[in-house]
Amino acid sequence: MSKNIRESDDASLDNAVLSLLAGHVSIRKFRQEPVSAEQLAAIIGAAQMASTSSNVQAYSVIAVTDPALKSELADLAGNQAYVAECPVFLVWCADLYRLREAAKPHLSGAATYEDSAENFIIATVDTALAAQNAAVAAESLGLGIVYIGGIRSKIAEVSERLGLPELVYPLFGMCVGYPDQTPGLRPRLPLPAVLHHNRYDAEETVRQVQAYDSTMSDYLRKRTGGAKDTPWSAIMAGRLAEPIRLHMKDFLEGKGFMRR
Amino acid sequence: MSKNIRESDDASLDNAVLSLLAGHVSIRKFRQEPVSAEQLAAIIGAAQMASTSSNVQAYSVIAVTDPALKSELADLAGNQAYVAECPVFLVWCADLYRLREAAKPHLSGAATYEDSAENFIIATVDTALAAQNAAVAAESLGLGIVYIGGIRSKIAEVSERLGLPELVYPLFGMCVGYPDQTPGLRPRLPLPAVLHHNRYDAEETVRQVQAYDSTMSDYLRKRTGGAKDTPWSAIMAGRLAEPIRLHMKDFLEGKGFMRR
Repeated sequence: MSKNIRESDDASLDNAVLSLLAGHVSIRKFRQEPVSAEQLAAIIGAAQMASTSSNVQAYSVIAVTDPALKSELADLAGNQAYVAECPVFLVWCADLYRLREAAKPHLSGAATYEDSAENFIIATVDTALAAQNAAVAAESLGLGIVYIGGIRSKIAEVSERLGLPELVYPLFGMCVGYPDQTPGLRPRLPLPAVLHHNRYDAEETVRQVQAYDSTMSDYLRKRTGGAKDTPWSAIMAGRLAEPIRLHMKDFLEGKGFMRR
Repeated sequence: MSKNIRESDDASLDNAVLSLLAGHVSIRKFRQEPVSAEQLAAIIGAAQMASTSSNVQAYSVIAVTDPALKSELADLAGNQAYVAECPVFLVWCADLYRLREAAKPHLSGAATYEDSAENFIIATVDTALAAQNAAVAAESLGLGIVYIGGIRSKIAEVSERLGLPELVYPLFGMCVGYPDQTPGLRPRLPLPAVLHHNRYDAEETVRQVQAYDSTMSDYLRKRTGGAKDTPWSAIMAGRLAEPIRLHMKDFLEGKGFMRR
């Protein structure tokens, strides 16, 4: 234990924010009650206060409330009905278009926007940090959310429906609305599986999976009344062996990302 | 205004969580006071409760407290002294290694981990969502944080020092400690610059930059006693014209990411 990590018995590790974060569950069933314009502004305002790389703020959010459009996106996301049923479906987009356009008047000669994997990562991370603040903000208002990576399954069609220009790509969607279900917490990996000290511990992180496999088998067994108990690592193996969304690299290059 | 976004005058948009999120500032000067092991566990525990794509939990965190190692990382991040000065420097890594190793016993024949841009995005997003929860949790405990993208400037060296295996890459660092400064809030883009309704509004998002340019010029002028007032879009143009970290694509491919 390093001297910079002191032992402590203080009981100040319990507060309303930590409780909210500890209670996160994804919500896939929503009440009909709408989300107000003020709530939406508060949620996106909270998102905007997240950290951003050198203040580039390289993201945009499309708030989809049009029922026909929500239904289309629900289909494109792989028939996920809750995308149509939630009152507001947020599409979080990594966005370097605004930046490039805003910069144009200041650039002269051959100077222009330069594509790079680094810029792709900056925009993607900016978007995710903002979205997670939005998730926390929404939950603090009594709303529920679920991230929808499924919009990447038909990413070209989703982009076309939303009118996304070059240098903008939809990273994920997020259903927002009042929860009409109370799912139980899903256990996470043991802390030592993800937290390393001063050096990556490859043996320990893999060893910890055994304990988690047993935790998740118990969890599944309870949730399904004994019908399922596949260990986590076996479920993950199934995912790895059937790669999905192999169109992503071509799509991103087509949008001006990751060419170099 | 869609019927799914109702007008409302309810005053319930003020709570402790929203206030915390609204008050975020990056901290680059820390008191000597250490962070306790319990605080660190609470912060990473909160991170783990963030959403994760199909429960892959594709991230690891290296808590760096060793003074010599922190100093090295501070240098590698571009001589950022606060990396050495903060009591705990967290390195957030996108991690598909644990997943691949855990899956191995369940895969037979030619089945193996399949690289894809999609998997790269999943791991990167999982990492960022967890990290932002950690940032919020830390701030709820009275700690301050700053994200350090600078570790990507010498990403190969950082990876080597931390012993990161294939399929793991350091996405960003995060200084954590008790603040020894009280920076003012940095204004963000106007809400209509980032929030679109049902369709991306390319003209509006760029038009909104003009208002922000003037906001940021005022902000800079006040912060520097009149010495600086470069508009945001001009600063961004400078960034775009001098691309950084062009080694990222090769590095990621070398680590097993983004080959297809």
